[in-house]
This record gives sequence, C-alpha cells and structure tokens, in this order.
Amino acid sequence: MVRTAESRERERSAREARANDFRILSEENTMSTQFRKHSNTNTQQRPKQPRRQHPGRNNGPTKLEIIPLGGFSEVGRNSVAIRCEDEIVILDLGLMMDRYIEYTDSDDLVEISGRKLIEIGAAPDVNILGKEKKNVVGILLTHAHLDHIGAVPYLANRFDCDIHATPFTTELVRRMYEDERRHPRGRLVAHDVNDRFVLTDKIQAEFISVTHSTPQTVMILIHTPYGKVLYCNDFKLDNNPTLGPKPNYARLRELAGTVDYLILDTLYAEHPIKTPSEKIAEEMLKDVLLGTQSKGAKIIITTFSSHIARLRAIVNVAKMMKRKPVFLGRSLRKYVEAAQDVGIADFSDVEIVGYGNKVKPYLKRIKNPERYLFVATGNQGEPKATLARIVNQRLLPLTDNDIVIFSCKMIPVPVTIENRKRLENELQAQHVRIFTDIHVSGHGAREDHRDLLNTLKPKHIIPTHAEMKGLGAFKELALEVGYKPEQIRIVRNGERVRVK
Amino acid sequence: MVRTAESRERERSAREARANDFRILSEENTMSTQFRKHSNTNTQQRPKQPRRQHPGRNNGPTKLEIIPLGGFSEVGRNSVAIRCEDEIVILDLGLMMDRYIEYTDSDDLVEISGRKLIEIGAAPDVNILGKEKKNVVGILLTHAHLDHIGAVPYLANRFDCDIHATPFTTELVRRMYEDERRHPRGRLVAHDVNDRFVLTDKIQAEFISVTHSTPQTVMILIHTPYGKVLYCNDFKLDNNPTLGPKPNYARLRELAGTVDYLILDTLYAEHPIKTPSEKIAEEMLKDVLLGTQSKGAKIIITTFSSHIARLRAIVNVAKMMKRKPVFLGRSLRKYVEAAQDVGIADFSDVEIVGYGNKVKPYLKRIKNPERYLFVATGNQGEPKATLARIVNQRLLPLTDNDIVIFSCKMIPVPVTIENRKRLENELQAQHVRIFTDIHVSGHGAREDHRDLLNTLKPKHIIPTHAEMKGLGAFKELALEVGYKPEQIRIVRNGERVRVK
Repeated sequence: MVRTAESRERERSAREARANDFRILSEENTMSTQFRKHSNTNTQQRPKQPRRQHPGRNNGPTKLEIIPLGGFSEVGRNSVAIRCEDEIVILDLGLMMDRYIEYTDSDDLVEISGRKLIEIGAAPDVNILGKEKKNVVGILLTHAHLDHIGAVPYLANRFDCDIHATPFTTELVRRMYEDERRHPRGRLVAHDVNDRFVLTDKIQAEFISVTHSTPQTVMILIHTPYGKVLYCNDFKLDNNPTLGPKPNYARLRELAGTVDYLILDTLYAEHPIKTPSEKIAEEMLKDVLLGTQSKGAKIIITTFSSHIARLRAIVNVAKMMKRKPVFLGRSLRKYVEAAQDVGIADFSDVEIVGYGNKVKPYLKRIKNPERYLFVATGNQGEPKATLARIVNQRLLPLTDNDIVIFSCKMIPVPVTIENRKRLENELQAQHVRIFTDIHVSGHGAREDHRDLLNTLKPKHIIPTHAEMKGLGAFKELALEVGYKPEQIRIVRNGERVRVK
Repeated sequence: MVRTAESRERERSAREARANDFRILSEENTMSTQFRKHSNTNTQQRPKQPRRQHPGRNNGPTKLEIIPLGGFSEVGRNSVAIRCEDEIVILDLGLMMDRYIEYTDSDDLVEISGRKLIEIGAAPDVNILGKEKKNVVGILLTHAHLDHIGAVPYLANRFDCDIHATPFTTELVRRMYEDERRHPRGRLVAHDVNDRFVLTDKIQAEFISVTHSTPQTVMILIHTPYGKVLYCNDFKLDNNPTLGPKPNYARLRELAGTVDYLILDTLYAEHPIKTPSEKIAEEMLKDVLLGTQSKGAKIIITTFSSHIARLRAIVNVAKMMKRKPVFLGRSLRKYVEAAQDVGIADFSDVEIVGYGNKVKPYLKRIKNPERYLFVATGNQGEPKATLARIVNQRLLPLTDNDIVIFSCKMIPVPVTIENRKRLENELQAQHVRIFTDIHVSGHGAREDHRDLLNTLKPKHIIPTHAEMKGLGAFKELALEVGYKPEQIRIVRNGERVRVK
C-alpha cells in the first residue's frame, strides 16, 4: 500500500490525539525516576540469574512461582506473572508513563508497537516468559490507572486469553482498545469486587476490595493447590472513603497466616504516617472553596481524571457555591462516562466538554464565567492538556483574583517539574490565585503497611512499586514487625521467586 | 545577704523548673533562625538611622508613629510601640524562645534579668524608647503565646501602666507572674474579644476577633485623632474554627480603606495556599486514631499546650475510643486551667497530672494503660519535657504497636531538629509507631493574606513575623494585589515609621 500525504496526515493527527490523551491521563503513580538510569531496563539482555534456592526446602520442580515483569525496584509499568505448573496468569500490564510519552511525542512515530515499548522500558518485559507465553490463561487487572493497564492494548494480544477486571476497569480497557482502533483477542470479563472466580482447574482468582484513588480497586488473590499469592498494588487503607466500600478487612482477617506471598505497593513506606482518608481531601476542598473570597471570580480546578471520588466532591462543592460544574477535556469525559456506564457515580448534573476542539468555542460562548466551576485536565501542567491551553491561549481570560486549584500532588519527575513551573509562572503573570496540594494520596504509608501486615500476616512479602530507598524502608518496617530477613524478598524484573 | 548553699540550691531548682516550663511552652511561632546571625540583634549599638521622610508630605512634628521593638525582619520577641504625640502604647512583649532557653539553661544563672534578655536579643529592645518610656500608657497583648507575652514579667514593670488582654491571655499572664514570684506594677485588665476601650483622651484600643492556634486571639486596632493602626500578629482566617468565633469579617469590612497602617504576620506569605481550617486537623486526628489498629496499644499524643481547641478535639476522640484522657505535664495544666477559669473550655472530664514529679508515680500505678489516652508535653522533643522523660526513663514501658502521635509541626531550628531526631530514634528502637504532622498551622498563608488585603484595604502595610524571604514574598503579593512599592514598608527593629 502506498501511503499518501493524506493518510500520513490522518495517522499523524490520530497519533497526536492518542499521545495527548494518554499524557493527560498520567497519574500520581509515576513517581520519581531519578535513580532509574542505573537500573537495567531491558531484562532480556541481562545475564540469567541463578534461581535462588532456599536451604532445607524441597528443591524438586517448581510448582508455583512469581515472575516479576515490570515495576519491581522501579516505579511504573506494573506487571507480574504467577506460574502454577504449566499455567500462567498475568496481573496488570502497565506503562512507565514518562518513557511512553517521550516515545509517543516523537514526530517519526507511525504506530505504537508493543515490541518498541518493551525495548525502551515503557512496558513490562513480557519476553521474560519466552515460550511459556502460550501458557498464559488470563490477564487480571487491579485498577484503572495507566501504570497498571496502559500496556494492555499493545501487549495483551500476545496471549490467547481473556482479560478480567472489575466493571469500571473493564470499561476503561474497552475504551482504550476503541481509541487505539484495536480489538482484544480474548474477551473482556467484568467481575464485581469481592468476587471469586475459576480460571482453570488449578487456578482461581479473587478480587478483594481495597481503597485507592480510583474506583473499584482490588487486591488480587491467586488460589492454587500449591499456595496463595496476594497482589496488593496499589492500595491505601481508607476508613472513610467518599465513594465505594472500605477495604474488605473481614476477608483479610480470614486470610490471616494463609497467604504464602504478598506482593505489596510500598511507594510511601518511608513516610511515618497513616495516609489520610479521602474525606480529608473533601474537607480541604470545601474549606478552600467556601472559605476563600471568590465572588465574581472565575474558578478552575484540575485533578486526576480517574479520581471519580474527588470529581464528585468537587461537583458537590460547586453546588454549595451555586456554580454550574463543567468538565473540560478528553480524559475527564472518558473516565466520567465509564463511571456512569457501570453505575458507580452519577454526573448527569455536570456538563462535559470532552473534545479538545470544542473547549475553545464553548468557553467563548459563556457570558458569566463567574457562575461556573470549571474542572480541567492537565494537573501536571502538561502543555497540550486543557488547563495549559486555557491559560496560554487565553481561552478563558484570567485576571486578578481568579482562582486555579491544583487538587493533586506534583509528580517529581523533571518534565513535570518544568511543565508545572511554566504553567504556574504564566498564572502568576496573569495575577491568578494559585492553590496547590489540595490533595491526599492514594497510596498507603508506613503505618498502613504495618496494619496490613499485622492483619494479614503473610508468610513472605515482595515489596514493589518503589525504588530501592522505599523498598529498604519497607524491609526495615517488616523486620520491626517481627519478620525475618529471608521472608522479605526485594527482587528485580525477571528475577523469579519460587513459592513451592 | 550571704547566699547559703541551701538558698543557692533553692534558687537553682526554681530556675530549672522555670526554664523547663518555658521550654515546653515553646510554640510553633519560633521558626527558622538560620539567617538570624546576620541580623543586628542589639539595636542599641546600631548607628542611628535617619528617619525616612515622604516627599510631598507635611514634615512638621510627628504626631503618630510606629516604633518596631522586636520581631521585625526576624521571627520571635514580637513587640511594637505606637506613639501618639506624647503617649505610647506597647503591643505585645514576646520572647525569642531559643535564645531565652539557651540563656536560662546556663548553670551560672541566678535570676533572669530583663536587661540581660534584651542584651542577648531574647526580648524586645524597649531601650529604643529611651526617655519616652515614661510616656507608656498601656501594654496590650494579642494572644497567649510566649513569643508575644513571654517578656512581660521581665520588662513590663519598667512602665507605669496597666496590661490589657483578653481574659484567657490575662489569666496566663497572671500565672506567669505567679510562677516568677513577681508582681505587675499596674493592673491586669481583661477585655472581651471585640471590645473597644479608652486608654487616654487621645488613644482608644479595639480587640478584633481573629483565629489562631490559641483561644481569644485578637487583632489590636489603635484609634487616634491622627489615624488608625491595626496590629494583626499572629492570625489565620479559619472559617470552621472548632473553638471560639470566626474572624470578625463584618468589622474588617466596616474598616475597609480607613486603616492607615496594618502591621501583619507574614510568616507563611510564600506558601501558595489558604491555610486549612482547624477542622481539618480534627478530622485528621479522628482518621488516624479511629482508623489505626490500636486495640491493646498504649497511645501518647503530644501537641502545643496552648492549643486548647486541639486538646478538646483529642479528648473528644479519646471518648469515641472509650479511652480515659489524661494530660501529663506542667504547661498542659497551666493552659488548661486558664481556659477553664475563664470559661472557654471544659476539661472536667480529663485527669491532669500537672507536676513533673507526679508523672512517674501516677504512671506506675496504672494497671491498664491501653485503656487510656495520654497527652504529654514535649512535642518538639524537649529532653526535660514529659514525653521525652516517659520514653527515655521508661516511665511507661512502650513496645511493639504502641503509638506516639505528634500533633504539631517541628520547628526547624537546629536544637529542635536534634531533639526530635533523638526522641524519634529512641521511639523507633522501642518499636513504637510514630505518626508525625497530624497538624494544621495557626498562621495564614499567601491566599489568606490576599483575602485580608482585599477586605481591609489598608493604606500602608508593615509585614512582620518573618525573615527577609517571607517579607519579600509578601511584598510581591501586595504589589500583585495593586499596592505601590512605597505603601509596603519592610523595617527593622528600631526603625521608626511616621504615620502622620
């Protein structure tokens, strides 16, 4: 086929929309990468590690093992495989967002390839599975953040199996395939939180409800004849969630002492706190929005598009202020529609302008912007997202005493730091009032980890979703709780761990 | 008089009790002093500054002027004099806490002298007033923190006048005199918040209700025939206070455009937020105390003794947890009793062990410490305060899963950083769970300043209670709000400002 100028242009614009969409979906989960350059991003080229043997154990053929594919000793592209004899399940297939964006920003890009994503360390290295890839019997997803599901459209079709997730996550995956104009090879199967389901004669999976910064997040418990592996990545222990249930403590207590390996999100293991409830963020939003002089002022709030609970809180405050809530931006539309479609939140009271090119004419038509509360994508200052476009292109002229609220944490990677600095600088030049960090995290901290360990009492733990410093802090905590060093396994991608 | 060994010992032990008492009273207001060494601490030795003249103004005799005595371009020992013709009022007489403690810790100390406190820069330099000191007609105090009232027992008697404050502050000053075995030369006069009272034919004062981290904090408005000066130091704008009224916005609106000079606490002028309400701290406390596994655990909380609202919140959570609240430490007793005596809070449901030597036998007698919630002095890790003594002397043996909560911010001065590090280290060695920063500040931030300026519209502003960086940040904000550079006066102690 000869590529015409027109077809090239079509491809180019589709690619841009795609890249931009992903960029503004980037979540708080893609944390500092300052140490990443020292890590081996291509595990294929790495000399094979001898498999660790535990003295005194049966050293016959391995019946059950954990195969780290991505996100171990690094932050991003989360994925792990669990092999039970000749059957494998893959848990999560996420992206390393900054590498993904850098790659998809390139003008030379025609089509995003899974092979290339793996090569640059933007996707989990599923090549680690080698010939075993034909044995994969299911892909299971914990939650709808891109560092856990973003690689699905590029890699899942390498495996002849279904994709299992909660309804909200399933709906997001369906929309991702749609956006990419790709089709999943297997079915997308939705399971409710706290459901247990059969994958094969040997493997069952259980979704255990937990809290995080996006709805219907679950821990995944893999039941096999040779033991249980619990994958808890990401999590927080929120006892006052503003949307959805509390963590399923009853089930965790039932499981006490029976889980052979816990794979655990330890991003904030070094923070000596319990991460505050989402209720605190809601109160902070109310405090700042109702307590600041805002009569006659334009107000824009930006937050994570996937954070449905936060978005609902913002809409509720808008009503208390007698302002009309309007959501501006593509990824907001995507997540909000998914939440509505699966019936976990109602946004029928919100106007959504979900196409980039509609934002400008929409804002132009508005006569009394001080009667609105705008929510825009682009909380990390991404130059192509709605907030930066509003500010830089003056789509909504901002002036003295107008208000921009960042209901998020800045992700401390160089590109974001630079983007936010530029955006805040421009806002200050326009004399806009800036409020930052009206936010609580979705990741548990040191004292959440302790409570989880004390409740669940897993036999072994593999900390993940952190760089060496966080993993070390977690290990120290586990020792304090009473674990022995050999019960805590800090591993890298590709370094298999034998369970039995 | 011959000093016997016994009398020396008596003096020594009284001095130690006193120093310790003050140390554990040290508040969040004594912030970073890293730049202080560059500042001129003894304004007496400074060459006289020419008084600034404003071009185009009447340069006849000065009718009304502001005389900074302490806390200008530094953090601590807050004090300012307002002179109206031949009459002077002094607003606040505070201590620079770290210098005060260093001085009173010395073994050579026999008696604390006001002269010496001034010499070492621990107290406001009232010598700046020279012969005018006989003209002082009143000392007025904003609130009960030691960096605003701590120098009263050492310096107030140099002036032949009464001391005016709200009931809570007055009660604290009375107790300070009692502790020092001194007597005020004039009367201690209590005025309700929002009262206006006559000092002389020319000077009236008005206490305007504002929020802060201790009860009955006021702005002081000085009315004179030549203009109005408003002293707002310290303040936050809390619209959901958990104890006492909101700031008196109605009065501030009435005063719009009529205040000639606003002297303003700008400690956090560079933080791009509105300081969260005390309600947020209450929710955070509930979240962590009710949401953490604490069955069978001993719990100790430490916070500022003067923070009556926070203490009430802690007692309320204790009851929700069905634990008996007990307060341990001298300064807790002092502030809590003062609050009860003036009827602003009821702590009859709390047992208070208010003498250092009673804490040990009290804790020894307790059979079921897991049924209590202990509140202890020493949130900055002060080695002689109750918390450090409990931990280091094992007055209450702490072990795995016991909990210590710091409901405060660490004051970033070297001695505190070191003290806290030692204490936390010891706690970790005992495997205690530490929760830090369960706290919101009592000082307004950038967006509170903006709201205040927009409401009050003062003609001129003197930022105070900050070092040069904070003062500069405030000036930048004021320019953004529309002030001209000459309306913002950044001054040092001793640098008089002519109002009229």
